[in-house]
Amino acid sequence: MYIIEPTLILDSAKCRKNIRSMLKKAAESEVSFRPHFKTHNSREIGRWFREEGVDKITVSSVKMAGYFADDGWNDITIALTFNILEIEKVKELLKTGKKINLTIDSPEIVETIKKNLNFEVSVFIKVDTGYNRTGILSDDIKKIEQTISVIKKNGLKFAGFLTHSGHSYRAESKEDILDIYNDTVKKMDELKQIFIAGDPDLVISIGDTPTISIAGSLTGVDEIRPGNFVFYDLMQLALGSCVFDQIAVVFGTPVISKSFSRKEVVVYGGAVHLSKEFLPYGTGRRNYGQPVLLKPDGWGKLSEGSYISSASQEHSVIHADDKFFHSVSIGDVVGIVPVHSCLAANLAGSYLTLEGVRIPKNRS
Amino acid sequence: MYIIEPTLILDSAKCRKNIRSMLKKAAESEVSFRPHFKTHNSREIGRWFREEGVDKITVSSVKMAGYFADDGWNDITIALTFNILEIEKVKELLKTGKKINLTIDSPEIVETIKKNLNFEVSVFIKVDTGYNRTGILSDDIKKIEQTISVIKKNGLKFAGFLTHSGHSYRAESKEDILDIYNDTVKKMDELKQIFIAGDPDLVISIGDTPTISIAGSLTGVDEIRPGNFVFYDLMQLALGSCVFDQIAVVFGTPVISKSFSRKEVVVYGGAVHLSKEFLPYGTGRRNYGQPVLLKPDGWGKLSEGSYISSASQEHSVIHADDKFFHSVSIGDVVGIVPVHSCLAANLAGSYLTLEGVRIPKNRS
Repeated sequence: MYIIEPTLILDSAKCRKNIRSMLKKAAESEVSFRPHFKTHNSREIGRWFREEGVDKITVSSVKMAGYFADDGWNDITIALTFNILEIEKVKELLKTGKKINLTIDSPEIVETIKKNLNFEVSVFIKVDTGYNRTGILSDDIKKIEQTISVIKKNGLKFAGFLTHSGHSYRAESKEDILDIYNDTVKKMDELKQIFIAGDPDLVISIGDTPTISIAGSLTGVDEIRPGNFVFYDLMQLALGSCVFDQIAVVFGTPVISKSFSRKEVVVYGGAVHLSKEFLPYGTGRRNYGQPVLLKPDGWGKLSEGSYISSASQEHSVIHADDKFFHSVSIGDVVGIVPVHSCLAANLAGSYLTLEGVRIPKNRS
Repeated sequence: MYIIEPTLILDSAKCRKNIRSMLKKAAESEVSFRPHFKTHNSREIGRWFREEGVDKITVSSVKMAGYFADDGWNDITIALTFNILEIEKVKELLKTGKKINLTIDSPEIVETIKKNLNFEVSVFIKVDTGYNRTGILSDDIKKIEQTISVIKKNGLKFAGFLTHSGHSYRAESKEDILDIYNDTVKKMDELKQIFIAGDPDLVISIGDTPTISIAGSLTGVDEIRPGNFVFYDLMQLALGSCVFDQIAVVFGTPVISKSFSRKEVVVYGGAVHLSKEFLPYGTGRRNYGQPVLLKPDGWGKLSEGSYISSASQEHSVIHADDKFFHSVSIGDVVGIVPVHSCLAANLAGSYLTLEGVRIPKNRS
């Protein structure tokens, strides 16, 4: 690897292993696998999924749907609650024969969808099982009934129920995450039992990497849409969703300054590379990422006593333990394991593999 | 304005007014104005400064120096402590006849700079006046002497002392910010008095928008390098560096969901558009941005009781007061005033002016 500026390094072997593990888990549980591509946001990494037999995907936005549709993906769920202002862009996608699944939580936009689209489009109802971001509350059966009825009245296809248990990211233990998983599946299954008679093909679809990584078996749902698992990160490590060796990306950052009195190492690489996502570090301190030493074949273990204590636009300050501090010199490149790989990857223009290959990617 | 997806809206009249105000302040204090271009990172906005007579600039990185050098900027300070790995890129810039000022805090890289550059290059010593990120501590006269001596021994030009009082961003009142300003100027002036005899042309250069906006007069320094003032933002408003009408950018975001029970409005536009920078909101709550209603000629006042209580990758949840909640419907576009315009602008691919013109920009 030849790095002179902040560069997102990808261990493609770890990444492909993460893909295969999740595929295996889905297959063993006999659930359909529709990975979320927002984390990597790269056509090339998308092809690694295709090589393993994946043929349907999830994306965040209409824009992202277009990016992957152009690379031959034909069955795409747009998980963001549908932005009605982009209806013309969806029409363009449907014109090319793509299968697009929209997600809605408001019956009032269904008529506008119908009026503007002369193509068959499937619609998932977004259900709120506890995250409280978007979605119809899972116990609001009346509103769900009304929404299904509007969907059908307008001749759209009702695809089923979709939820994202994002509250798993706030969980404090693996047990909490398992509780969230079980609660989500229970709520989704209750809906399925109520509505399956009228719609025998309806699908219940769940997202979020933490619950899906931690649940032993995924039986009870029809489809899973994890995204972050492709790279994992420090947050997933803290949640217990992965082990360190599954983390597939680190930011390579040049060392530009050292303070002997504060035992700090400053790297070129800050909030515009890693984002400002942080984890707590001890009491009252923030951890914006943790350093690792780079090696020709990847990177070493976490330096547990070292962490990024502050991140400004282009700088990060590593509060270093003695060993790490004395291991690095100005002009070295050190790896930073990101707290949240989705945000860090979004900020990068490309990936650099350990073999020195640049992998292009999209940006939001 | 025609907006269908998250779009950074720029009020160019406010922006130009901010530029002129800062120029006027610099002129009245008889200090040199070398604005930091990292915030807007746009050649077009750079030209607005040039139209006002600005002929020298500050940038973060060597990459950004190249972007602006190609647009005719000939005198550029790279404020990031020099990343020695990019020496060849600096050489390319110098070859084209540009004046480049580097910033260093370690005497050990000076020899490498000299060995690799056969061009005249000016070197500022980065001084730490209290921010504790990079720089030689301002009272470490011995190290400063040693560094000047190494710079001269290697035939480089010693330009002076440069500091960034970034601790002003953590200040709790205008008085604190003024104290930081006065302390910074005092420490820088002490250095000047010690070293001016040997280097009569040495410049003392200070950065950071808060102190420079709040200080009544800027006498006592030679050069100022503020950047954020070009747009300002909620953080500067909270610090007292600007008034609301000086904020020149908001993110236009489509409304995609509303929760009547929680009085929440969800917009398409999240951490990948606004960043995850936040301000405290009351006790224990976070404010990732505040909504405003868009109007044909700009945007309205802050809805004081409404703020973004959580931001995920592509979504923001606005905790709305009654008035704001009932003013917006799904399919509307609302403005979000960013907490930190430097990070929000970095995430955008372009600006959209109120007149509907797209202004291209660079990304880190």
